[in-house]
Amino acid sequence: MNKPFSPDQADRTGVTTGPLPASRRIYTEPEGFPGLKVPFREIALHPSAEEPPVRVYDSSGPYTDPEAAIDVEAGLGRRRIDWVRQRGGVEAYEGREIKPEDNGGVGDKRLARAFPVRNEPLRGVDGHPLTQLDYARAGIVTAEMAYVAERENLGRKAMHDKARERLADGESFGASMPDFVTPEFVRDEVARGRAIIPANINHGELEPMIIGRNFLVKVNANIGNSAVTSSVEEEVEKMVWAIRWGADTVMDLSTGRNIHTTREWILRNSPVPIGTVPIYQALEKVDGDPVKLDWEVYKDTLIEQCEQGVDYFTIHAGVRLGYIHLTADRVTGIVSRGGSIMAKWCLYHHRESFLYERFEDICDIMRRYDVSFSLGDGLRPGSIADANDRAQFAELETLGELTRTAWDRGCQVMIEGPGHVPMHKVKVNVDKQLEACGEAPFYTLGPLATDIAPGYDHITSGIGAAMIGWFGTAMLCYVTPKEHLGLPNRDDVKQGMIAYKIAAHSADLAKGHPLAQDWDDALSRARFEFRWEDQFNLALDPDTALAYHDETLPKEAHKVAHFCSMCGPKFCSMKITQDVRDYAATLNDPDAMNRDEGMAEMAATFRQMGSELYVDEKATAPESGSRSD
Amino acid sequence: MNKPFSPDQADRTGVTTGPLPASRRIYTEPEGFPGLKVPFREIALHPSAEEPPVRVYDSSGPYTDPEAAIDVEAGLGRRRIDWVRQRGGVEAYEGREIKPEDNGGVGDKRLARAFPVRNEPLRGVDGHPLTQLDYARAGIVTAEMAYVAERENLGRKAMHDKARERLADGESFGASMPDFVTPEFVRDEVARGRAIIPANINHGELEPMIIGRNFLVKVNANIGNSAVTSSVEEEVEKMVWAIRWGADTVMDLSTGRNIHTTREWILRNSPVPIGTVPIYQALEKVDGDPVKLDWEVYKDTLIEQCEQGVDYFTIHAGVRLGYIHLTADRVTGIVSRGGSIMAKWCLYHHRESFLYERFEDICDIMRRYDVSFSLGDGLRPGSIADANDRAQFAELETLGELTRTAWDRGCQVMIEGPGHVPMHKVKVNVDKQLEACGEAPFYTLGPLATDIAPGYDHITSGIGAAMIGWFGTAMLCYVTPKEHLGLPNRDDVKQGMIAYKIAAHSADLAKGHPLAQDWDDALSRARFEFRWEDQFNLALDPDTALAYHDETLPKEAHKVAHFCSMCGPKFCSMKITQDVRDYAATLNDPDAMNRDEGMAEMAATFRQMGSELYVDEKATAPESGSRSD
Repeated sequence: MNKPFSPDQADRTGVTTGPLPASRRIYTEPEGFPGLKVPFREIALHPSAEEPPVRVYDSSGPYTDPEAAIDVEAGLGRRRIDWVRQRGGVEAYEGREIKPEDNGGVGDKRLARAFPVRNEPLRGVDGHPLTQLDYARAGIVTAEMAYVAERENLGRKAMHDKARERLADGESFGASMPDFVTPEFVRDEVARGRAIIPANINHGELEPMIIGRNFLVKVNANIGNSAVTSSVEEEVEKMVWAIRWGADTVMDLSTGRNIHTTREWILRNSPVPIGTVPIYQALEKVDGDPVKLDWEVYKDTLIEQCEQGVDYFTIHAGVRLGYIHLTADRVTGIVSRGGSIMAKWCLYHHRESFLYERFEDICDIMRRYDVSFSLGDGLRPGSIADANDRAQFAELETLGELTRTAWDRGCQVMIEGPGHVPMHKVKVNVDKQLEACGEAPFYTLGPLATDIAPGYDHITSGIGAAMIGWFGTAMLCYVTPKEHLGLPNRDDVKQGMIAYKIAAHSADLAKGHPLAQDWDDALSRARFEFRWEDQFNLALDPDTALAYHDETLPKEAHKVAHFCSMCGPKFCSMKITQDVRDYAATLNDPDAMNRDEGMAEMAATFRQMGSELYVDEKATAPESGSRSD
Repeated sequence: MNKPFSPDQADRTGVTTGPLPASRRIYTEPEGFPGLKVPFREIALHPSAEEPPVRVYDSSGPYTDPEAAIDVEAGLGRRRIDWVRQRGGVEAYEGREIKPEDNGGVGDKRLARAFPVRNEPLRGVDGHPLTQLDYARAGIVTAEMAYVAERENLGRKAMHDKARERLADGESFGASMPDFVTPEFVRDEVARGRAIIPANINHGELEPMIIGRNFLVKVNANIGNSAVTSSVEEEVEKMVWAIRWGADTVMDLSTGRNIHTTREWILRNSPVPIGTVPIYQALEKVDGDPVKLDWEVYKDTLIEQCEQGVDYFTIHAGVRLGYIHLTADRVTGIVSRGGSIMAKWCLYHHRESFLYERFEDICDIMRRYDVSFSLGDGLRPGSIADANDRAQFAELETLGELTRTAWDRGCQVMIEGPGHVPMHKVKVNVDKQLEACGEAPFYTLGPLATDIAPGYDHITSGIGAAMIGWFGTAMLCYVTPKEHLGLPNRDDVKQGMIAYKIAAHSADLAKGHPLAQDWDDALSRARFEFRWEDQFNLALDPDTALAYHDETLPKEAHKVAHFCSMCGPKFCSMKITQDVRDYAATLNDPDAMNRDEGMAEMAATFRQMGSELYVDEKATAPESGSRSD
């Protein structure tokens, strides 16, 4: 039996390590790219299953690999720096000096310990391709592209027939997922802007991943630092915990003190892309007063974060002066933090947003480090009443214009989306976004399908997220149960992640992703065959599945019992189904069951099979349950 | 400040009583039906809101009314018996004698205490209308019809214009919800079989409700008795707890000992319709061996439960002999308990199902008490792999045939549906059901959008439930987090209920129900105006919303603070929006914002308004959060 994750494993390194139950981290090497090690998780099944391990996508990084030496003080290995250097076009330089205001001007007493290692930053040199988009357009398959192709295929070396049948079974609304993802396909999708590989050249610790609607639907988790950072491990642990439960990217939305140092610790230990909202830090540098913001402080912040290795920036450049009054009659006005900062700035100065006016300059900075744009939806609706209104869609049109500008300047782009949207208004969001933004990947927060359930917004938004993922959203930003109410704790992060992994996987299934249903089928076979441990181990959250089962039937023996607590040992519908199956197998002509002839013989055959209704009568009878009929 | 529900309130009566926070139970009287008291919940808002209380549908029964005297030993008042007697066509009679096997042959020592009051049962007499369907067809509006019309309107006396605008905003997929529900509309919907009012003439305690796709989407909760019934209050409490959180009907899926007595206690204390699966009890009467079932024992069980007042029966008469082999190649075979019982019976005897063959006799029994059919989907899929297969849809065709038979014989009918269905296969389930079953109300379990998350199946199925409710399902059967794993406890029941109230309300919103969005808007206004207590009180689960908020900001003062824990007091996006609003209000010509002219003046105006970014700087700065940008 697999033990649930033991918390004392966390003590060794300061962060949570160790594999999930029955799981091991394996690596495969893409053909033609020796030395690339692409990670997966393999879930071992009980020998009675006579099935190979189930291989699933794994974003958890080396933390779940017992072979990996984890040292938060040293950070993860920076192998990707070699890839970047090998393809050239970059230069190392001294980099921007760290200033007191980068950490919110915090005094020595409260200053968090700096990350012990300093890496000289890289930047692109003029006249050379630098971004994944540059290389894709130049017809060059980068190591990152080969890596993500291998990853999306779950390490398969070729398409298998089963997958091909599967694909026909979805409704992809115009997405065109191939049966088998080649590096060339990845290159092509990146080249046309339909997918991005967020991968700052200074994020050497990165295990590359891809965001696009012809790939697996991804999930982002937001984390934020605490005002008083007593332990940097604690900050790193938030990221490690989120990726343990499947976060494909992590946004660091920290504000306040030690913001630079915290981000450094996170980046140096993160195998997933890290996103930020630079205006948050810029605001700290001007003492929290939006009207004091200007291009110089913003630009300085961009460069600071580019050098650190942030992989994508949320930039609310679509909040234009002329759109702000469109929000005046809303029930909840402007709910985006970045959006309201810019609205305040625009109104106070009565000027067009400097983010909009300086957008080309922003592109030129971000391109030198291959930081991807996540164009923020600063005017997204914060309530059902405000969904799909003029303000929201006016901004979306501008995001489309900015997308083309960024593409022209070699930058990768994705587009952020709402918010709070009732189900019947969800699809038009995707349709409009795809059209306005030339199919740039969509990245949405939920959306929440109703406003009436604070405390359960991982569920209200999980509904919208599953649907919008199905319709074409490439990455879903998770929402925790604490949304609108307070700060998520460790369990909230996990609850949000599981809800969003459900949404993303449901979307993959409905789109007809060729590999998605394999996981469902493996779990359902385990369920049908009473392989209880396999059922737990294949669950998105094995620990909770096991714990719930054990509340009713804690005995070890029950884990092999051919019954469950719903019907108990006296009666079992699954057992009857097995009888049906055995019986059907004896029929040469199934249609004979529809004829009157030979009924007596058939009944006799069935009885002779010794079909047994009662299974293991000696086992303890559990309480009867409230399962549906 | 409202206290969360205090558990000691439960001690007084053995069940949970008392209102939800800031709520009171009110009653209105439908025009033309003096004496009918139709219940609602009114949620009071803070005086600063200057808004009337928010009125919501209330299925919780007298338990949330402090004025009501609750005595589980006496049961609820049986006023509805008068309605039934007044319209005539019924006779009281001695009724079937209770036999030891009705309670699973349990010995005296373990026999649960009988309900103290015995009511003589009523049944219909030949040649008179009896069921709601009979009356509806005869053009007669019953008290039940007037009651549910009032209830669906939330007690409004007339349509209001706002509601009319709202309606245009949904996508109802052919449902046609009126702006205002008249008793005549209810009658018409019942007459054409598109809605049912499950209301056994012997369930005098009932507060009638309606199930149909032109009405609010309803939720059913399943409960089941424990093998050892030490306390009957405990059994009643399961029902009371489920309706407290919004269950519109409750299915008693008990098996084993004391099944008759438990049901009696539940019925005598239930204001909501109670459904059962009679084959479960019939099976108990033949020692749990399906092959020993026959028409006589089944018929005897039907009459037993009809006399007790059960409002609807799940009957798996669509599991025909000829369909059973269609399940042989499934990944999870037959997962319906009733379905597998009948499959076993059919195969063993190699005979057509006696439920199918005796269906007209079943109708004639159920009609005499006005027990509604819930035609069971015994061949529903139990995994993504088995969704929408031949077995499932073959059975659905038969359910259509049975619907017509039941209608011909004066019985009300709804149809049960799956199960496990990926999102892209959900809608066709509704379309086929509406067509095959002549628009009889659809009643679905979930469906689960993926199989990979045991422990979170309230979420996997909440996604499918919201969607299928939107597409036209009239009632959703909840799923708890323990589904597939164990027996739901009290908290699991609540979790399942909240997830399903979210799904049902999201469906109402998306369908364009004229009143649904009022609730969302009221909550969003409270959120925007920082009326924290109103936000909690308007939540589906006020206790959890309050508790989550207090984890971060426990102080009473924070409940009136114009900031929340996400952004803290130094910066607040909602405050900025208020500034935008004030500012926009000063503009005679909003388009002026798009012109260059007068910029300086405008900026000056904005500054003169003394717009303040910093709110209450003295308040404690909470930790910064991980809310999205």
